[in-house]
Amino acid sequence: MNDTTRTLPNFRSDNVAPVAPEILQAIADVNRGPAASYGDDDYSRLLNQRFSALFETEVTVFPVATGTAANALSLAACARPYGAIYCHEEAHVHTAEGGATEAFTGGAKLLTLPGPNFRIEPGLLRQALTGTAWGVRNRSQPDAVSITQSSEFGTVYALAEIAEISAIARDKDLSVHMDGARFANALARLGCGPAEMTWRAGVDILSFGATKNGAMSADAIVVFDRDLVEPLSYRLRRAGQTWSKMRYASVQLLAYVEGGLYLRLATKANAVAARLGAGLAALPGVRLVAPVEANLVFINLPVPAINRLAAAGLPFARRGQDVIRFVTRFDSTEQEADEVIALVRDATSGG
Amino acid sequence: MNDTTRTLPNFRSDNVAPVAPEILQAIADVNRGPAASYGDDDYSRLLNQRFSALFETEVTVFPVATGTAANALSLAACARPYGAIYCHEEAHVHTAEGGATEAFTGGAKLLTLPGPNFRIEPGLLRQALTGTAWGVRNRSQPDAVSITQSSEFGTVYALAEIAEISAIARDKDLSVHMDGARFANALARLGCGPAEMTWRAGVDILSFGATKNGAMSADAIVVFDRDLVEPLSYRLRRAGQTWSKMRYASVQLLAYVEGGLYLRLATKANAVAARLGAGLAALPGVRLVAPVEANLVFINLPVPAINRLAAAGLPFARRGQDVIRFVTRFDSTEQEADEVIALVRDATSGG
Amino acid sequence: MNDTTRTLPNFRSDNVAPVAPEILQAIADVNRGPAASYGDDDYSRLLNQRFSALFETEVTVFPVATGTAANALSLAACARPYGAIYCHEEAHVHTAEGGATEAFTGGAKLLTLPGPNFRIEPGLLRQALTGTAWGVRNRSQPDAVSITQSSEFGTVYALAEIAEISAIARDKDLSVHMDGARFANALARLGCGPAEMTWRAGVDILSFGATKNGAMSADAIVVFDRDLVEPLSYRLRRAGQTWSKMRYASVQLLAYVEGGLYLRLATKANAVAARLGAGLAALPGVRLVAPVEANLVFINLPVPAINRLAAAGLPFARRGQDVIRFVTRFDSTEQEADEVIALVRDATSGG
Amino acid sequence: MNDTTRTLPNFRSDNVAPVAPEILQAIADVNRGPAASYGDDDYSRLLNQRFSALFETEVTVFPVATGTAANALSLAACARPYGAIYCHEEAHVHTAEGGATEAFTGGAKLLTLPGPNFRIEPGLLRQALTGTAWGVRNRSQPDAVSITQSSEFGTVYALAEIAEISAIARDKDLSVHMDGARFANALARLGCGPAEMTWRAGVDILSFGATKNGAMSADAIVVFDRDLVEPLSYRLRRAGQTWSKMRYASVQLLAYVEGGLYLRLATKANAVAARLGAGLAALPGVRLVAPVEANLVFINLPVPAINRLAAAGLPFARRGQDVIRFVTRFDSTEQEADEVIALVRDATSGG
Repeated sequence: MNDTTRTLPNFRSDNVAPVAPEILQAIADVNRGPAASYGDDDYSRLLNQRFSALFETEVTVFPVATGTAANALSLAACARPYGAIYCHEEAHVHTAEGGATEAFTGGAKLLTLPGPNFRIEPGLLRQALTGTAWGVRNRSQPDAVSITQSSEFGTVYALAEIAEISAIARDKDLSVHMDGARFANALARLGCGPAEMTWRAGVDILSFGATKNGAMSADAIVVFDRDLVEPLSYRLRRAGQTWSKMRYASVQLLAYVEGGLYLRLATKANAVAARLGAGLAALPGVRLVAPVEANLVFINLPVPAINRLAAAGLPFARRGQDVIRFVTRFDSTEQEADEVIALVRDATSGG
Repeated sequence: MNDTTRTLPNFRSDNVAPVAPEILQAIADVNRGPAASYGDDDYSRLLNQRFSALFETEVTVFPVATGTAANALSLAACARPYGAIYCHEEAHVHTAEGGATEAFTGGAKLLTLPGPNFRIEPGLLRQALTGTAWGVRNRSQPDAVSITQSSEFGTVYALAEIAEISAIARDKDLSVHMDGARFANALARLGCGPAEMTWRAGVDILSFGATKNGAMSADAIVVFDRDLVEPLSYRLRRAGQTWSKMRYASVQLLAYVEGGLYLRLATKANAVAARLGAGLAALPGVRLVAPVEANLVFINLPVPAINRLAAAGLPFARRGQDVIRFVTRFDSTEQEADEVIALVRDATSGG
Repeated sequence: MNDTTRTLPNFRSDNVAPVAPEILQAIADVNRGPAASYGDDDYSRLLNQRFSALFETEVTVFPVATGTAANALSLAACARPYGAIYCHEEAHVHTAEGGATEAFTGGAKLLTLPGPNFRIEPGLLRQALTGTAWGVRNRSQPDAVSITQSSEFGTVYALAEIAEISAIARDKDLSVHMDGARFANALARLGCGPAEMTWRAGVDILSFGATKNGAMSADAIVVFDRDLVEPLSYRLRRAGQTWSKMRYASVQLLAYVEGGLYLRLATKANAVAARLGAGLAALPGVRLVAPVEANLVFINLPVPAINRLAAAGLPFARRGQDVIRFVTRFDSTEQEADEVIALVRDATSGG
Repeated sequence: MNDTTRTLPNFRSDNVAPVAPEILQAIADVNRGPAASYGDDDYSRLLNQRFSALFETEVTVFPVATGTAANALSLAACARPYGAIYCHEEAHVHTAEGGATEAFTGGAKLLTLPGPNFRIEPGLLRQALTGTAWGVRNRSQPDAVSITQSSEFGTVYALAEIAEISAIARDKDLSVHMDGARFANALARLGCGPAEMTWRAGVDILSFGATKNGAMSADAIVVFDRDLVEPLSYRLRRAGQTWSKMRYASVQLLAYVEGGLYLRLATKANAVAARLGAGLAALPGVRLVAPVEANLVFINLPVPAINRLAAAGLPFARRGQDVIRFVTRFDSTEQEADEVIALVRDATSGG
C-alpha cells in the first residue's frame, strides 16, 4: 500500500510524517501488563516530573489527541464565555480549527490583529487593549492573547517579543497562551531553553506539539499557571480528550524529549527548510513570502508555474492564488530539498 | 517501572489492559514514509472498506480518541440542541462522562429510564414516548435513544430486544445509538454477526469500542445512517478528534478486526468473567448483582469483606456501599480468576 | 376580540392574567421624555435601592423577560460547565424549560431528587452529596441546589427546611438558588419577610417572579451573593435579556412591591385557591394531589370526569392521566372558585 | 425623577426614547381579563395575520425582548455550529452583542467584510465565497450573510444592493438575515414597501426593530423562510424569549404598524437627522463620517471640541478618538437639531 505521490518529495505538511523510531520503540517497551488508567499510571506521573525538570518549574502535562484540542481547551481554560482572545489574523485557532475555540469556550470571540511576518506586533496589541471598552456589558471582555511559536508561516518570535506581549497582556490581567504546534522548531531556531521561551517570558499555558515532529498521536497541554489545572482537567475529560490507556500517550512524550530528541528532530527539519528556502529564493520569479525561520517555506510564484508543479504531482499546499507552502520534517533530506528546488526552477522557467 | 498492584490480579477495569501484540505490530508495519493526513491515507480508506465488508453494508468509520468522544459526538449528530435522548438510568453517557453529551449537543437532555438488568425495557420506552409532549415548545423533544451493548453491568441485549427498541424509536423518528464500548464482548456472547446486532436491528450509529479490548488509543464511530456522516465529520474536526496522522489509528482498527481478532480477544475476556462469576456466585455471602453475560462481574458482599479485599491490595472498583466490580480482559487468565475467587472466599469467611 | 373560554372561569394558569392596574399606571407615569438606557436610568437605580430595603441587605436586581431566563441564567452564574445542579424531579427547570439550563451553563447536569409534596427532602440531598464522587473527573461536580418556592405543585417550604437545605449546600460549597416564579404566594403563605425566606435562610440568588402575579412582562433576578453580579451582568446582555428601555421593566417591579402590592395580589390568589381546594377536596371521587398552600390546586379525579370538564370548555391543565391543575390569580374571585367546584361536582357525579 | 441631562437635547441613542402614545394606549386597551399564554392568544394570532398582509406573504412573527435576541437567535436558526456568517466588520452582531451569536449558534464564526459606508460590498462577498474552502473540515462553512438595514452608521442599502447580495448568497445556499434594528428608518428613506426591502430582495429572516422607534419592550423576528419557523420556536422558548403574557408584546407590534405609525415615527426621526446632518456638515472643522440616510449622524471633529461638548453636558456617543454620534428619534424636534448645531458650532469655534 503506497501513497501515490511517494516518488516525489512530499513537503505538503509535517502531518504526513511517520513516527520517529525512538518513540515507536518506547511504546513497545511500555506494553507489558496492566497499568492504572486515565493518567494514574507511573509513566504519566513521570511525564509531569520530566517536563517539570525540562521546563525548570512545576508544570502539569495533559496529553491530548490533537493540536486543535490543545488550543481550544487551553483557551477555554483561560477565557470566560463572554470573554475575548487576541490572536494574529492568520492564527490557526482562527482560520483552521473549524470554530473549536468558539465552541469550547461557550462563545468567546477571537479578535484578530494584523502584524508583519505573521507575528502579533506588540504595539498593535497594546493599542487594541487601550481602546477596549472595559466593563461595557455588550463587548466581549479580553481574557487572553494567543501567539503561535513558530508561527503559521514559519517565522519565530524573539524572546523579547514574547516577553513584551506577555507584559502587555499581564498588565490587563490577560492570560498568555502559546500555540506550540511547532514548538520544537522555534526552540531549535532560538537556541534557548524551553523555560526561556515560555513561562520566563510570561506564558501561562502551552499547546505543546509533538505529532508534527515525530510523535504518533500525542500532543499536550503544558500548564504553568496552577489555577488553570483543575478546571482544565474536567474540561479535557468531558471533551473526550483523556485517554484511558494514558501510558501510551505519556510514553510518547517522554521519549520525545528524552535526551533532547525533539530538538534533534526539529533541527533537522529546520535545516532542510533553510536549504530549501535559500534555493528557492535564488530562483528568478520566486519570492519568499516570509523569512524561513523554522520548517515552513512559503513562496510566491507565477500561477502557471504552480499549475505545472501540481500537474507534475508534487505535493504542496496552496495558500491563495499565487502562494504555495512547503513543510519539511525530521525525516526530510537535503536531497529532497534539492529535488524540489530543481522542480520549481523548471516550472518557473516554463518547464 | 511496575504498577504497585501487579502482584495480585488486576480486574479493576479493562482500561488497565496493554495493547494486543497484533495491533502493536500493525502500527510498526505502517510506519514507513509519508502518508496523507486527516484520513486521506490508504489505510483509512481501507478501514471504510473493511468495516463495510464486516458490517455487510456501506459504513463510514471515524476513529476517535475515547469512548466519551464517540458517544457524545454520535449523540450530537443525532440530537438537536432542544432535543432529548433516552438512555438507561445507569448509562455511561449519563453517569460517567462529565456532561459530555450535554456539552456537545448544545444542551440536549438525557432522559433516563429504569430497566431490569441495566437494560432499557422496551415497554418503558414506548410508554415514555407515548407520554411525551410532542411539539410543546418548553419540552425537550426526543431525538434519539442510546443503548449500551454490552451494558455497563455486563448484561447483553438480545437481538429481539434491540430490534424492538429500534422499532419503537423509528416509529417516532428517533435515531438509535449503540454505545459499544464493549461491543465485541456482546457480539461474542450472542454469537451473531456485527450486522445483526446493529443496523439490521435498527441501529443508526455505533460507538465502536476497541481500546478496552486490545487497541492502544483508538475507538471509532461507525455510521450506518448516511445523513449523519457529513455533519459528524465537521463536528469531529472541531472537537479535536480528527488525528492528523490518522493512519496510526486506522491501522489499529484494521488489525483489531483482521481475522476476527476482536472476537477472539473478547471471547477470552468473557470466558474468564464467566469462570469468575460462577466461582464467586457459589460463595456464601456473595451475590451476583447482574447475570454475567460479558466481561463484567458485579457482586454484592458484606462491607467488612470489601474492606478486607481493599486492605489486601486487590484492585477492583467499588459501586455503592456493598457492591464491587471486577472486569476481565483479553489478557486475563483462568488462574487469575481462581486467585480472585480464593481471595473473596477468604475475605467473606472472615479472612 | 374575546378569548373563546371567557365565559367559564379560566384557571388554566396564572400566565393568563392581565396586568394589575397599579403596574400599568406606573408604566404610563414613567413615559415622559428620554431616559438613559440599559439600566442606567433613575428608575433602575431606584429599583436596586428599593429591593435592597425590601430584602434588608444590599441586592442587585436584574429585570428579565421570563422566568425561564431568570432560572437558567441564575444557574449559569452558579454552575461551571462541568458542574451539576440538584433540583426536585418535578422542578420546572428540569421538566419545562426546554433544556435552557443545560444550554446557558454550557452543559451542566441537572441531578434530580425525589421528595414528598414536591419539595426536596433535606435528608436526600445530604445523602446525594455524601455519595458524590468529588474530584472524579468524569463526574459532573455539584455546584448548586435549586429549590422552587412555592413549588410547582403549590406546596411551600418552611423556613427551617430552606435553612436546612442551604446549610447542607453551604457545607459543600454549593450555591443556593430559589426559583421564585411564585415567590409572593409563598411569602403570603408563610407571613414572614422576604429576607427571612431568602438570604437569611441561605439563598444566594433568586428568580423573583412578578409576571404571574400582576406584572406585564418583567421577572427579575435578585442577587444576594455579590460575586455573582458581574458575571451575570455580562451573561444577561449576551442572552438578549437586558432591555435597552429598562425603565419600563424597572418601574413594573417598583410598582409591584410598592406598599406591599405584591403581597396583596398573592394573598388574594391564595385565598381563592384555598377555597377552591377545600371545596374540591370535599367532593366524592376527588382527591387533592398536594396540600393547597399557595395558588395551585392539583386534583386527582376519574378520567371520564376530566373529559366532561374538557368538553364543557372549562380551562385547566392536564398533568398525567387522571390529574388536572387549577391555578388561581390576583384577579380571581371566590365566585369563580365556587363555579368550578360546582362544575367538577357535576362532572364527577356523572354530569 | 428627571434625567440629569434633560435640559439639553438628548441624541445619545434612540434607546433613550419614551414609548409612542399610540403603543402605550394599545397596551392599556388589551388589559382586560385572561388570555391564552405563550402566543396562543388572539392578539398574537392577529399579529401573524397583520404582518403577513403588511409583508404581502405569509410570515411568522416572534416577538422578543431585545434586538440582540432577535439577531442571535435568527442567526442560530440559519447557521450550523460549524458554520460561518458573513457580516460587515462594523456590524452590531459582531461588535456590540457580547458574543451572543457565537453563544446561541454553538460556536459559529462571524466572518467580517469591509465595505464603503458601512455596507457590505457585494463584490467582496462574492470574492470571499469564491475563496471559501468548501467542504474542508477544519474551515467553518458559510451558512448565512447578515446585513444591517439601515446600517450601524445610518447608511441605507439600495434595493438592488440587497438583491445582489441575496443572489450571491443564494447561489451558495446561504441564508440572508437582515438586522433591522432601524428597519423603519430605512424603509422611510427608500419609500418602498416592506416586501420590496425584504423577501422580494431575497431576505429569509428579519430582525424587526420596534423598540428604538417607539415600542416599549418588543422587537420581533419575522420569518419568511418557512423551514426556519419550527426550530426557531424551540430555540426562543429555551432562550427565555417567549413571554407567557405574549399579548402585551403582540399588541405593541400591532399598534406599531397600524395605519403606518412606524413609518410616520421613522420619517420624523429621519427628518431631524437630515436637518442635523446638513447643519453640522456646513460647520468648519466638522465632517460627516457617512452620508445621513436614516436617523444617525456621525461627525468627525477636533478632540478639543468633543471635550467641550462633553463638558457642557451634551449627550452623545463617542466612537473612536475624534468621532461622535448623534441619534435622532420619533420624538426629536427640529429645534433640538438646531440647538445641537449651535452647540457644536460654539465648541468647534473654540467656544
